[in-house]
Amino acid sequence: MPVSDASRGVLLCFDDERGVAQSCAEQAALTLAVVERHRFPDGEIKVRLPQSLPERVVVWRGLQQPNEKLVELLLVARTARALGAHHLSLVVPYLAYMRQDIAFQPGEAVSQRIVGAMLAELFDAVITVDPHLHRVATLQEAVPVRDALVLTGAPLLADHIATQCGGDVVLLGPDEESLQWVARAAARHGWAHGVCRKTRHGDRQVDIELPELPVHGRAVVLMDDVASSGHTLARAAQLLREAGAASVDVAVTHALFAEGAVALIRSAGVDRIWSTDCIPHASNAVSIVPEVAALLRGL
Amino acid sequence: MPVSDASRGVLLCFDDERGVAQSCAEQAALTLAVVERHRFPDGEIKVRLPQSLPERVVVWRGLQQPNEKLVELLLVARTARALGAHHLSLVVPYLAYMRQDIAFQPGEAVSQRIVGAMLAELFDAVITVDPHLHRVATLQEAVPVRDALVLTGAPLLADHIATQCGGDVVLLGPDEESLQWVARAAARHGWAHGVCRKTRHGDRQVDIELPELPVHGRAVVLMDDVASSGHTLARAAQLLREAGAASVDVAVTHALFAEGAVALIRSAGVDRIWSTDCIPHASNAVSIVPEVAALLRGL
Repeated sequence: MPVSDASRGVLLCFDDERGVAQSCAEQAALTLAVVERHRFPDGEIKVRLPQSLPERVVVWRGLQQPNEKLVELLLVARTARALGAHHLSLVVPYLAYMRQDIAFQPGEAVSQRIVGAMLAELFDAVITVDPHLHRVATLQEAVPVRDALVLTGAPLLADHIATQCGGDVVLLGPDEESLQWVARAAARHGWAHGVCRKTRHGDRQVDIELPELPVHGRAVVLMDDVASSGHTLARAAQLLREAGAASVDVAVTHALFAEGAVALIRSAGVDRIWSTDCIPHASNAVSIVPEVAALLRGL
Repeated sequence: MPVSDASRGVLLCFDDERGVAQSCAEQAALTLAVVERHRFPDGEIKVRLPQSLPERVVVWRGLQQPNEKLVELLLVARTARALGAHHLSLVVPYLAYMRQDIAFQPGEAVSQRIVGAMLAELFDAVITVDPHLHRVATLQEAVPVRDALVLTGAPLLADHIATQCGGDVVLLGPDEESLQWVARAAARHGWAHGVCRKTRHGDRQVDIELPELPVHGRAVVLMDDVASSGHTLARAAQLLREAGAASVDVAVTHALFAEGAVALIRSAGVDRIWSTDCIPHASNAVSIVPEVAALLRGL
């Protein structure tokens, strides 16, 4: 347990995110406490919090594989209130359910709004990193909470890329939606940038078309907010190799990586994979923690 | 799609409970509709409902392995309201999270109240069967909804036992909490009954003590609301065999049965296993559907 000023509050985390949460607690002068969690054979979850809590409580929970964690958050948030928390913040480095922001077909649940409303009912403030917002402009539309704060991993990744690849980099997004992150990162270092055109035929089937950019003999980095199945990145890397790129690296904020995804991407000709520590993963190369801690100190 | 009077409403179900839900829809004069459900590789769920709904909508969903299903229910209930449902009922034949009805240790979430409040926010009426209520007297305390309706599988199972075992049966509950179901079923047929004393040392480790009841040479049926890991039932069956019971059968409302549980119970000397169709399972022997349909017609 780190020595810190308990009056600033408690940061609650789960065991699988203990490392990154502890670092955040130290930088934000919060006392770390790990939620005790038990899963019964029938699938029910039991959680146990410290038996008394200060007024200010922060919960650290990424929502990769989100459903069970959403139920845990419900249990933790309601229990934290009962144990004394008045101001409850959620640091959710990866925020799931942001893609389904409209009913693509009549009758579909607009999951973004429903999950966002649930989180807004439970918490007073939400901090996240690079949420996948497409048709909505602000996080607050999706998660209508008083303080809906957004950080971005793109500049951190860009600076890391600069140390690894030098000054002449082509930064490429795998689809149109990645332009917001790619453009920001490229502008920071004056790099050429562009995005691919993607046609999706299913969860794991995608067609990709490279943009009109000279890549022959150059260092290309594929950048996106999230890598999941890896199929899009693998297809793009394959096309870049065929087009004669000198190197192909991958930089993503959220290392969601389904099973086999990293192997798939590497087999397509990707040299290095870098990610932020929003999701704990072997590829973590830069840390979002200092920026999260700065926001928490200001809340 | 059954031909029915759509003005009475729609019953929404999921594919894995289609059989029992269809039977209920027919008996309650509701139109059945199966919710389209897609699970993405990252664990997110997409649900799609009929694009317009009548004022009266019933959702059929058992909560065995409950967490993902709770998120689905959140998505379905909110979307049903958006699509026109004014009165929304939940038929939840197996209602999870009822055991954790107090903080057994300071700081523990009282999951029963938290999950109950969530369901009460989403639905106007809840119908369930043999909820595992221990320290609370009524379902409405756990699920504070206007109509909180409870059915019991015990009489159905008792009548089935009578057809299979005849008049001289010893009905035994594996622990003190099962007395409520065992006493009711035994009274219906004038059978001897009792409950074991159970000491639990973990999820899968239990000590059992048989009650002072003559079982030598007699037909014994172990009855409970739910069978999960099967360890308690297996241990009780083993003791009954050692005490010379002529036969040992099992009757439970909820066939939750974790992997390997049925084999474990059978290897302990249990002849037959009977359950209600609250949870679809090979052991289903009696149906709760007529009673659910009667309640739905009365709502």
